Amino acid sequence: MAGLERLHAALSNGHGDTRLSWTNRIVIGLIIAASLTAVLETEPVIREAVPTGLFIGLEAFFVIAFSVEYLLRLAAVGVEPRYAGITGRLRYMVSFWAIVDLLAILPSLLLLGGQESFLLRLARLLRLLRIARLGRFTAALNDLVEALRGRRYELLISVAAAGFLLLVSASVLYVLEAEAQPESFGSIPRALWWSVATLTTVGYGDVYPITPLGRIFAGITAIAGIGLIAMPAGIIAAALSDLVQRRRDG
Amino acid sequence: MAGLERLHAALSNGHGDTRLSWTNRIVIGLIIAASLTAVLETEPVIREAVPTGLFIGLEAFFVIAFSVEYLLRLAAVGVEPRYAGITGRLRYMVSFWAIVDLLAILPSLLLLGGQESFLLRLARLLRLLRIARLGRFTAALNDLVEALRGRRYELLISVAAAGFLLLVSASVLYVLEAEAQPESFGSIPRALWWSVATLTTVGYGDVYPITPLGRIFAGITAIAGIGLIAMPAGIIAAALSDLVQRRRDG
Amino acid sequence: MAGLERLHAALSNGHGDTRLSWTNRIVIGLIIAASLTAVLETEPVIREAVPTGLFIGLEAFFVIAFSVEYLLRLAAVGVEPRYAGITGRLRYMVSFWAIVDLLAILPSLLLLGGQESFLLRLARLLRLLRIARLGRFTAALNDLVEALRGRRYELLISVAAAGFLLLVSASVLYVLEAEAQPESFGSIPRALWWSVATLTTVGYGDVYPITPLGRIFAGITAIAGIGLIAMPAGIIAAALSDLVQRRRDG
Amino acid sequence: MAGLERLHAALSNGHGDTRLSWTNRIVIGLIIAASLTAVLETEPVIREAVPTGLFIGLEAFFVIAFSVEYLLRLAAVGVEPRYAGITGRLRYMVSFWAIVDLLAILPSLLLLGGQESFLLRLARLLRLLRIARLGRFTAALNDLVEALRGRRYELLISVAAAGFLLLVSASVLYVLEAEAQPESFGSIPRALWWSVATLTTVGYGDVYPITPLGRIFAGITAIAGIGLIAMPAGIIAAALSDLVQRRRDG
Repeated sequence: MAGLERLHAALSNGHGDTRLSWTNRIVIGLIIAASLTAVLETEPVIREAVPTGLFIGLEAFFVIAFSVEYLLRLAAVGVEPRYAGITGRLRYMVSFWAIVDLLAILPSLLLLGGQESFLLRLARLLRLLRIARLGRFTAALNDLVEALRGRRYELLISVAAAGFLLLVSASVLYVLEAEAQPESFGSIPRALWWSVATLTTVGYGDVYPITPLGRIFAGITAIAGIGLIAMPAGIIAAALSDLVQRRRDG
Repeated sequence: MAGLERLHAALSNGHGDTRLSWTNRIVIGLIIAASLTAVLETEPVIREAVPTGLFIGLEAFFVIAFSVEYLLRLAAVGVEPRYAGITGRLRYMVSFWAIVDLLAILPSLLLLGGQESFLLRLARLLRLLRIARLGRFTAALNDLVEALRGRRYELLISVAAAGFLLLVSASVLYVLEAEAQPESFGSIPRALWWSVATLTTVGYGDVYPITPLGRIFAGITAIAGIGLIAMPAGIIAAALSDLVQRRRDG
Repeated sequence: MAGLERLHAALSNGHGDTRLSWTNRIVIGLIIAASLTAVLETEPVIREAVPTGLFIGLEAFFVIAFSVEYLLRLAAVGVEPRYAGITGRLRYMVSFWAIVDLLAILPSLLLLGGQESFLLRLARLLRLLRIARLGRFTAALNDLVEALRGRRYELLISVAAAGFLLLVSASVLYVLEAEAQPESFGSIPRALWWSVATLTTVGYGDVYPITPLGRIFAGITAIAGIGLIAMPAGIIAAALSDLVQRRRDG
Repeated sequence: MAGLERLHAALSNGHGDTRLSWTNRIVIGLIIAASLTAVLETEPVIREAVPTGLFIGLEAFFVIAFSVEYLLRLAAVGVEPRYAGITGRLRYMVSFWAIVDLLAILPSLLLLGGQESFLLRLARLLRLLRIARLGRFTAALNDLVEALRGRRYELLISVAAAGFLLLVSASVLYVLEAEAQPESFGSIPRALWWSVATLTTVGYGDVYPITPLGRIFAGITAIAGIGLIAMPAGIIAAALSDLVQRRRDG
């Protein structure tokens, strides 16, 4: 039983300021390598440049590695009283991070057969979810989520204000520009594409008003967009400032 | 009279931390559904895909529902002493939210006849104002307006600074670029379209300077635009921070 | 001498929370009207739509009005001991706002003759400087300038950091993209145009890297641009926050 | 030995609020002039406009000036006990700023031969590193680096969140748009170029989704980009605010 306990200690990511164990550092390295492989594999230029079978081989390696890790975790978790025995193991398997770990293995099976298609791309995307496994190792994310939750009231107001502004500007531009540019402003849903690009100040430039009235109103919208950015920026900045304060105090 | 009082309680949106009544939740759902319908109806692709009469039927349903709600509110409000009797009801009818409620019903009548035209689009836009009715149910908006009003002095300065910057940059680009691009920079009003897109950092890319001097000055303008964004962002962030503080203290 | 004193009181813009005198409100109205006229006059479509001579007549009216105001101020200022007598009047004439007032009158004379040319556009631009006269009436601007001056150390750092970032990114893109796009990235000054558009997040889209390495570095630059925006935003926000605090305290 | 001591005092940039010596002001002027020359020399239009040999002559002058300065510093530094004697001088030569000073001289030698090529452009870029020598004279930079280091925990979170957001949005757009636009969204690395441009709100407009689903998700990405900007902005603003506070307190 001492072996299981040592395994559990090696796989546990500790709490507070304990450093990550070497086992977990290897796991993190594997997750990052697997994610990078999944990203690069989508690029046809790279797929053609490397020898056939390289990506299949890598994927097989990652699946086996993650499966071994999954089984080892399942075995080791038994040393914790609440996960002891068969019932405990089942209870562990439906815990949040255990499901994430399982999801990181399964999508690969979808890739065994199949050509370049929507489903294949979707399977590749699901494989990228492995990167979410990194969340297991970071306590910082919890702090951040906590900090933002404390400001959910203000964030809700600013999201509502943003939605209202988007709708109003899209509607006005629809009224003013629909005749001149039916393709881009012929309906409110179409005008919303312009609204989002303008209010977030992305401004792709594929769509913009051409009538004088439309331009005047678009200018007002763009200036209002500054306020749209300012509100969540101020809220998140304040939330992060709280987070720092709390970490220093305690 | 107990019926009226129960109706009044059901329609009143309460104060402070009272939860919304089920009646009001239904009304909010209807407002959102009506707004969504109004948005989707403008899209020709959707109009052609659904059976003829669907949107007319939906609109009729929303008009009737909102009319019934309006009359019920008018009846129920009589339990409040200041709105009691005929005179009280008339006083209620000219109150802010009662007018908004009425405006949410009337524009539909404009839609009964009419083809695809500017007036039809305007009527649809007015119908979207229904979404403003949501303001009746949110106390948060009042807080936000209050917080921003406390900073109106700083917001005024930053709006004035923005206006000045817009005018100066448009004027300089007009002097430098008018000869090279008369269509886009041939007058200060035309150059203002470029100014707004640049200072708000939207940057559609439909208009930009091409002469070396124009580009140097445009670069300075773009950098100054950062300050333009920074000022209201800082002000609104501080106002929201005050708001949070006040809510925590009391 | 009582007449001069009353005139002086009417023209003086007071200090602190004194309201603007009616005489000064008229002057402000004239300045705004003259600036708006100067802006609209540059637009050929408007010039052709209005009767010939309208803009010349308006300009003549504004020049006469501002000249009368200038002479009245010159006469009235004599009631202040330091500006009394001929020597005092001369001393007033070289004071900052008196020079601005004079500059608001003179450029019009350049417009009497002349066709559509660079000099004519420059004269129109100078005429727009009249709007700077509004600065005479606002105490708020002084406060803002004062607040920003207190942060000149931080603003200087962020401007230096921005300049450094601009130069570095332009240099790297010049090295990476010069061969592929000699027209846009063939020299560091040319690449600077791209740098400014990217780091300020304006992103016109007239110039962007096309090589893989150039795109990777451009992505890093764009992300660094967020920091570039964040620094002055934070500084100005803090300065404005100080300003509000000081106004509340005293 | 008094001569060396006076030289050392003239070259030392002092500490705290001591003003820069005249010798150092000349050195700063030379660094800026050399950097500006290096920038302008890359522009073919300027190279052809000036007489042949001007840039070579200027470069020779800067190399000699910086070499003389380097040797003078090496000699003068001996008055400090820890850098006295031959061993002390060698210890100085491997100190950070001494290496930077040396690097500012060496790349010029690469320019003596060579035509318009990648290596030549790289040599020019290295020459621009001279501007980094300015860091020697500014204590402010140290303060800023110190302030940001105190927030490295928060900056790391926001960089990780940004990286995650970039990857997720690129992956989703790859799934949705790859069929419609294989050139721009045919792989995740390609879609990342769009992601960076959108999340940083640069929005060049060379790549944007065209399918309805792609546009809906792109809109959500653009709005999420506001949060991406808000997080580092808030962190850096808070760090700068700390910096100001510390400077005032002590």
